[in-house]
Amino acid sequence: MLRLRCLWLSSSSLPFKHQFLPSPILSSSSSSSFKSKMEAVSYSTQSSSSKKLLFRQLFEKESSTYTYLLADASHPDKPALLVDPVDRTVDRDLSLVKDLGLKLVYAINTHVHADHVTGSGLIKTKLPGVKSIISKASKASADILVEAGDKIQFGDLYLEVRATPGHTVGCVTYVTGDGPDQPQPRMAFTGDAVLIRGCGRTDFQGGSSQQLYESVHSQIFTLPEDTFIYPAHDYKGFTVSTVGEEMLYNPRLTKDEETFKSIMENLKLSYPKMIDVAVPANMVCGLQDVESKAV
Amino acid sequence: MLRLRCLWLSSSSLPFKHQFLPSPILSSSSSSSFKSKMEAVSYSTQSSSSKKLLFRQLFEKESSTYTYLLADASHPDKPALLVDPVDRTVDRDLSLVKDLGLKLVYAINTHVHADHVTGSGLIKTKLPGVKSIISKASKASADILVEAGDKIQFGDLYLEVRATPGHTVGCVTYVTGDGPDQPQPRMAFTGDAVLIRGCGRTDFQGGSSQQLYESVHSQIFTLPEDTFIYPAHDYKGFTVSTVGEEMLYNPRLTKDEETFKSIMENLKLSYPKMIDVAVPANMVCGLQDVESKAV
Repeated sequence: MLRLRCLWLSSSSLPFKHQFLPSPILSSSSSSSFKSKMEAVSYSTQSSSSKKLLFRQLFEKESSTYTYLLADASHPDKPALLVDPVDRTVDRDLSLVKDLGLKLVYAINTHVHADHVTGSGLIKTKLPGVKSIISKASKASADILVEAGDKIQFGDLYLEVRATPGHTVGCVTYVTGDGPDQPQPRMAFTGDAVLIRGCGRTDFQGGSSQQLYESVHSQIFTLPEDTFIYPAHDYKGFTVSTVGEEMLYNPRLTKDEETFKSIMENLKLSYPKMIDVAVPANMVCGLQDVESKAV
Repeated sequence: MLRLRCLWLSSSSLPFKHQFLPSPILSSSSSSSFKSKMEAVSYSTQSSSSKKLLFRQLFEKESSTYTYLLADASHPDKPALLVDPVDRTVDRDLSLVKDLGLKLVYAINTHVHADHVTGSGLIKTKLPGVKSIISKASKASADILVEAGDKIQFGDLYLEVRATPGHTVGCVTYVTGDGPDQPQPRMAFTGDAVLIRGCGRTDFQGGSSQQLYESVHSQIFTLPEDTFIYPAHDYKGFTVSTVGEEMLYNPRLTKDEETFKSIMENLKLSYPKMIDVAVPANMVCGLQDVESKAV
């Protein structure tokens, strides 16, 4: 497993813990001056004039899952990442990546999904240079395990990792960077922590309604109100919301903590039909045997 | 039927034929100085500093239809319009309009749909102030019938009407305005004229493959390449494309005209299952008896 950690040199003074840079940008050499090279690269590209996010939202109809494609289109390599790819739509996603002339560097999951098999492993078999990312707290395998405060860099843009457990023990929310050279308004990929006018269930995979409530209120509802919320799913045809909107209209998360816990404990949902297939697969990037082949 | 036509006063020199302004913005008086009032309103709001498009894409799963909500969020009235609303998702759409504090003024169709019933009529029963819009060439009934070159104003923003027949005889594409005070890149709501990596069939409702080819190449592929294409449908989970992308990768429309016509004549598609219900209903805003009640 590859874990890249380095300091981030920039004129901004954003709080962070670790930063992950795609290896293609760092060239293929594996010298002992790895850290200093990364510093040089990330420092030399801190120009606020040429930042440009290419963004696409993609929908998988059977599980109502949204996959997100983000790329720095102004960077010469056009480095890109996919958030929450689905196995059965990998060919569609990679075809789009190719059409747009992007270099896919990361396949990222917000959590170990129970309703579909992630496309991360399949992507790695088709594009071996791609690195999979998931949270360390998920206990799943991936090339890079992230924690709260880490940054995932792609070109001059980055995603910040926020721990938002509660739907599962390892859920994280990826938020686009803070600063004038990053997309404005910010964008939060909330997984199942916040859905549009809803939230993920809390009765499996180490879920906890109390923890979800605390996560959302401390990590998501503290973002600027115009921050876009891009969830992992929607079942009614909504594509996006904002922090401000969910703080006003989310029928569960606007309630006080005790009412929220009571709502979540009385949902009477049926057993997730895909969970016994999806969770074991998703603990290893969606395919049991990919790690040994592709890493 | 209400038809508003007036001159548009602006420092820009864009070509246009007519402009439609929502009546709520014009106050409720119906004086003889109607034209001069509209000139005053449209002239006084030509400020490029406070323009702000609020935009939402909405999906109806059964017919794979996209409905688009656009509003001028910087205008005190927050005037909004819906492009291609679907009858069965009207409550969802109006709930969102309400949550966002918008004033819905127009329900607009790109064409007489054959695969779903428009929500325009139902919206008018629920919000009687809303005006329905469709092309004059469609021969359908609506409050406002538009032609190529017309402009549909909402606040300080507007949509330009482009005639793009071929899928049906009355198809139009609505394009956001040209100029620094309008959304950049531009956005084209293409209906079924251009779909992402596809196009609408041409074998019903006065369709013509030759006409569709000419429409797309003269009216859509002449827009700036970064213009976003927002179609009426997608069946693979794509949400948006660009003019440049479709000019490169559309498997039908990148071909020469003769090849395109041959492709369209040999699609061997089944009879549209909803056509006999949807088309008669959509000729009158989706509900046979709404016009007399609500206009």
